[in-house]
Amino acid sequence: MSKPAFCAKIEKVSGPWRSPRAAPETKGTDCMNVAFSARIQALQPSAIREILKVTQDPSVISFAAGNPAAESFPVKEMAQIASGLFNEKATAALQYSVTEGYTPLREKVRARLRERFDAVHDGDDVIIVSGGQQGIELSCKVLCDEGDTVLCENPSFIGALNAFRSYNVRLHGIPLEEDGIDIDALAHALATLPRVKLLYLIPTFQNPSGITMSLSKRRAVYELCLRRGVIILEDNPYGELRFSGDDVPVIKSLDTEGIVIYCGSFSKILSPGIRLGFVSAPKAVIQKLVVAKQVSDVHTNIFFQMLADEYLARFDLDAHIARIRAMYREKFLAMHGTAARYFPKAAGLTRPDGGIFLWCTLPEGTDILELCRLCAQKKVAIVPGTSFMVDENTPCSAFRLNFSTPTLEQIENGMATLGGVLRDFLG
Amino acid sequence: MSKPAFCAKIEKVSGPWRSPRAAPETKGTDCMNVAFSARIQALQPSAIREILKVTQDPSVISFAAGNPAAESFPVKEMAQIASGLFNEKATAALQYSVTEGYTPLREKVRARLRERFDAVHDGDDVIIVSGGQQGIELSCKVLCDEGDTVLCENPSFIGALNAFRSYNVRLHGIPLEEDGIDIDALAHALATLPRVKLLYLIPTFQNPSGITMSLSKRRAVYELCLRRGVIILEDNPYGELRFSGDDVPVIKSLDTEGIVIYCGSFSKILSPGIRLGFVSAPKAVIQKLVVAKQVSDVHTNIFFQMLADEYLARFDLDAHIARIRAMYREKFLAMHGTAARYFPKAAGLTRPDGGIFLWCTLPEGTDILELCRLCAQKKVAIVPGTSFMVDENTPCSAFRLNFSTPTLEQIENGMATLGGVLRDFLG
Repeated sequence: MSKPAFCAKIEKVSGPWRSPRAAPETKGTDCMNVAFSARIQALQPSAIREILKVTQDPSVISFAAGNPAAESFPVKEMAQIASGLFNEKATAALQYSVTEGYTPLREKVRARLRERFDAVHDGDDVIIVSGGQQGIELSCKVLCDEGDTVLCENPSFIGALNAFRSYNVRLHGIPLEEDGIDIDALAHALATLPRVKLLYLIPTFQNPSGITMSLSKRRAVYELCLRRGVIILEDNPYGELRFSGDDVPVIKSLDTEGIVIYCGSFSKILSPGIRLGFVSAPKAVIQKLVVAKQVSDVHTNIFFQMLADEYLARFDLDAHIARIRAMYREKFLAMHGTAARYFPKAAGLTRPDGGIFLWCTLPEGTDILELCRLCAQKKVAIVPGTSFMVDENTPCSAFRLNFSTPTLEQIENGMATLGGVLRDFLG
Repeated sequence: MSKPAFCAKIEKVSGPWRSPRAAPETKGTDCMNVAFSARIQALQPSAIREILKVTQDPSVISFAAGNPAAESFPVKEMAQIASGLFNEKATAALQYSVTEGYTPLREKVRARLRERFDAVHDGDDVIIVSGGQQGIELSCKVLCDEGDTVLCENPSFIGALNAFRSYNVRLHGIPLEEDGIDIDALAHALATLPRVKLLYLIPTFQNPSGITMSLSKRRAVYELCLRRGVIILEDNPYGELRFSGDDVPVIKSLDTEGIVIYCGSFSKILSPGIRLGFVSAPKAVIQKLVVAKQVSDVHTNIFFQMLADEYLARFDLDAHIARIRAMYREKFLAMHGTAARYFPKAAGLTRPDGGIFLWCTLPEGTDILELCRLCAQKKVAIVPGTSFMVDENTPCSAFRLNFSTPTLEQIENGMATLGGVLRDFLG
C-alpha cells in the first residue's frame, strides 16, 4: 500500500507526465498504470506536420495544404441564414439535439445522395457526422477489433490511415495504378491476409494522387470484397469537384448487397471549418455509428446543421458547385500549364479531372524529403509522397501539389521556383 | 474463393445488414468479417432512451432531460458576434483550423480555469474539444487498453459510462454517500482490482445525484489515487452553477503530481448545441489527446470557437453566469418546495447547492421502472435510478429530477402529478 506505483524515473520529473519525454519510459511493470494505451502509442506524429509548420510563415507559398479555396465559401448566404436562425430558431439551434443529425438535413442529404450519386438504397440510412473524418473513424470503431486487417490504397489519406492506426488494426497498402488500385494485388491480399475487415478507398480524385478509379475496376473491387465478406469504406470528399470528363459511378451505387459504407462531406462545397459530413450505409451500420457518435460528441454542432439545411432549401447548391468547379479548373490549368513550362522532363504529373491535388513522380531513388526541405528554404511548401505511405519508410519518389488554396499568382510564382529547384536537384 | 463469406442466414436477408435484426446472428465463424467490433457489441442501448421518447409529446412535462434552460442562452450577444465574424473574419471562421483549438480561446480558457478553479498548473496545457463528452471519450481512448479497469461513482453519468464501455474496459462502480464517494470502498477497489487505470468522478453537483464531494474526501481520493498510480478524470460540467453555499476546491487544484485530467464545458453556461468543451491536463496527456482528436474530428467547429472567444472578450461571463444561477436557484426552490408539499414522507430528496438535478430516494424494493411508467402515463417524465448504475440490474430505488429545463409552472403542475402518483404507488 505504501509503495508508490510510479517508477523512480517518473517520480524524478515530479509526476508521471510532467515531462512529455517521460512517456516512453513508463513501460516498466511499476508504471503500467500511467502508460498510454497501446493504440495511441502506435500513433506516431507524421513528417507532414513538420513541413506544414513552414506554411505558417506568410511569405511561404503553400502547395502543401488540402484546404478548399476560401473564396469558395458562400459567406453572404451563410451570414443571412445565421441571422435568421438567431432571430427565429435560436432555442433549437443552440440546445442539445439528437445524435443522428437534424432530420430535415438528413432528408435533404439522403435525397441528394440518391439523385446525384445513387448512393442511398432501400435499407440504407444516413447520419450527419462532424466532418468526413468522423465518418471514417467511427466506421473503424464499430467494425474493427484490434488486430483486424484494414486494406487501403498506397499512398492514401493520412487522416484516415491514422484513424485506423488509432484502433490498433493492421494496415496493409495496395499499390495504385493510373486507373486506380492494383486489382491483382488486392485479390492477393484478400486471399492471403488474416482477418481482413475493411477496404478503405477514395475512388474519385484520390488524395494524394488525384487518380480516379475506372468503372471496371470499381466493379472488380466490389465483386472481390463481396466474395470475401469484406466491407468497403468509400470516401468521396471530392466527388462534386469534377471539372472535366464524365462522372464515374460511385462504388456505393453498385452496392446491391449492403457491403459499402459511403462517406461524404460539406467541407469542399460549403465550408470545412463548420465540420459537417455524412455517411450513407445499411441501417444496422448506421445504428451502431449512432451509438458510437453519441459517446464521441453527442451530436454535430446543430446551428450549422440547420444552417446547411436552410442553404440547401433556399439556394442553388449545384450552381454554387459549378462556380467552384470553374474556379478549380482555372487553378488546375494554371498549375498544370506552369509545370509544363518550368518542370524538367523527368517529372511526371498526373492529370486529374477534378479534386484539388496533383501528384508529381520523380525518377526512382530521388531523395524526396531533401527536395521538400530545399523547396521550403525557397519558400515553397510541398508534401513528400512518403508521408502518404502506409509505411513511411517505403520508397516513394513523388510529391503532392495542391492547387485549390493558392491564388493564380502564387501558382505562377511558386511553380517557377519549384521548377528551378527541381532542375537543380535532378541535375 | 467461390464460397461466399456470409452465412446462409444473412444471405437470406439480401446482404449482411439488410435487416437490423440480423446483426446478433452474424457471430458464426463464416460471418466473422461482417460482425461488429467487440467494443461496440458491448454497448447496449439504455432504458433511458425509451423513457425520453415520451418527452417528444409536447403535452408531457419532462423532468427527464439534462438540458440547460433555453432562456439562459445569450442569443442577442451571440447573434451580434456571429454577424461580425461573417463580415470581418469569415475566412478564418469557415476554413480548416488547428486541432488544439483556437489559440485566443485556449488562452482565455486557461486563464479562467486558473483564476476561477486553480485548475491549470505549470506543466499543464489546455485543448478545446467538441463538448465535455469528447474530453471524456478521448481521455479513455488515450489511456485505457481493452480489459483495463475504470472506476466511477455509482450511479454516474450514462454518457461517460458508455464512452468507457465503447473501449471495452471493465467498469466498476463505487457507492455514493451524502458527502461523495465511499472512500473505504474506493480504497478496497484500488487494492484488489486488476489493472485499474482511471477513476472517473463528477465531484460537484454530481449527475444524477446532485451530491457534492466534501473537501476532505477530495483530498483522500487524490492521495489514494496518487499512491496507486491511478489517473483521476474530473468532470466538472456544473461547477459554475452554484446557487448556495461556498465553492469546494476542484480535485485538479490539489494536483501537484500531474495525475488529474480536468474536463469542462460551455454547454451549461453558453449553449450545448454548439458543442464546445475543454480539457486541462499535463502537457504529455494533451499531446496525446490532440493526436486522438485529430483522427476523430480534425478540430472543433472553428466559427463557434471564435464566437465564444469574442464573447469572453466583449461580455461579462460572470454576470451572465450569475443570472443563470439566480434562475436555477428559483427553479430549484420551486421544485424542492413542491416536493415538500406533494411528496409522501417516504420519499427522500437530496438538497444540492447547485447544478441541475435532484435525486429522490424511495424505500428499498420499490419498483422504480414501474413508477416511471406510471408517471409517463400521467404525462410526467422522470428517469429511473437504475439507468445510471454501472450494472442496470443493480437495485436502485431512486429517480432523477431535472429542474433547469421546465418552467416554474411546469414544475408546479408536474410535481403535483408526480406527488399523486407517488402517494398512490407507495400506498
